[in-house]
Amino acid sequence: MKKGFALWFTGLSGAGKSTIANLLVERLHTMDRPVELLDGDEIRKNLSQGLGFSKADRDANIQRIAFVAKLLSRYGVIAITAAISPYRETRDRAREEIGTEHFVEVFIDCPLQVCEERDVKGLYARARTGEIAHFTGISDPYEAPTHAEITLHTNRETPEESVESIVAYLAETGKLTRDEMLSSNHSYTPQEEALVEERLRNLGYL
Amino acid sequence: MKKGFALWFTGLSGAGKSTIANLLVERLHTMDRPVELLDGDEIRKNLSQGLGFSKADRDANIQRIAFVAKLLSRYGVIAITAAISPYRETRDRAREEIGTEHFVEVFIDCPLQVCEERDVKGLYARARTGEIAHFTGISDPYEAPTHAEITLHTNRETPEESVESIVAYLAETGKLTRDEMLSSNHSYTPQEEALVEERLRNLGYL
Repeated sequence: MKKGFALWFTGLSGAGKSTIANLLVERLHTMDRPVELLDGDEIRKNLSQGLGFSKADRDANIQRIAFVAKLLSRYGVIAITAAISPYRETRDRAREEIGTEHFVEVFIDCPLQVCEERDVKGLYARARTGEIAHFTGISDPYEAPTHAEITLHTNRETPEESVESIVAYLAETGKLTRDEMLSSNHSYTPQEEALVEERLRNLGYL
Repeated sequence: MKKGFALWFTGLSGAGKSTIANLLVERLHTMDRPVELLDGDEIRKNLSQGLGFSKADRDANIQRIAFVAKLLSRYGVIAITAAISPYRETRDRAREEIGTEHFVEVFIDCPLQVCEERDVKGLYARARTGEIAHFTGISDPYEAPTHAEITLHTNRETPEESVESIVAYLAETGKLTRDEMLSSNHSYTPQEEALVEERLRNLGYL
């Protein structure tokens, strides 16, 4: 059985975590890799009902995600977690729990101002009026990673480009094999196709 | 990838859930099947800290176990859950969540009196004095299964016999294959060996 691992996304609300995670799931499926997305909202519904957004509650939520990601990765699954996970120490505990060789921290970096302008779910507006308390970036801290394996700048790259950066990292570190990289039957846009071909050439696979 | 499934143990404290579950894990490992034990105490520590033993809290705990068992079984893992899970309706919800074709309810049946006499963890004594409230069988209900796939009578069979009953059921229903049954390199006691041989003969494998 292939080794699984966790792709631990972290970033502000609206930075693009879920968008990239969903595209990445599709991309990895084309390589026939088992992959499970542990989305922040989904996990709160299924594992953390009743928890709020205090530091203690956020930490408990993250620890639960880490526990499940560890279980899944043990059985060959790529577990993608897409919760804000704002605290550095808590992420480092997740890294320790899962094992650093099976842990890839992916910093979805996007300036607060850009996230707030997007405000896809209308949450920033409600956080600014104080209707929502403990809102990361507004009334609650966000501690950016200092040693993330991957940093994506979603204010100046497309989600597809972000996905290809992650795939390239996984290929370079052997977490995806040459065969998997070449087997992918993803239907690329012409733009993506050029990108993927370049990556494969850089890896010496073409 | 082989299909996973959940072995959903239910029974009173002291009925033998953990003992049988641990032996079963060893037995399935010898067949090279991925298997994960979701023990009641372990899950409470990792997923349900803060939950108590009211019906609502017990239900939330069971739903979390079901969520994790479902994820694991999706990736070929045999998930063994060993929590009391006293409420019939809640177990039925777990069955529905996981899918009844991937759900094997295992009733670890043992008379309350016998469990209480064993009182391995000293909990019954503390429940009788009222020091522990909401204790299943004493001050909280236990609803025995009405349609469990497997019922084990742990007051009149050894844990090894219970394990072989489960293995036989899994073989008969095709959840373990002939090859897996014959490949097991478990080191049996002479008593177990006779039992296993009989099972294999009954299955027409010898």
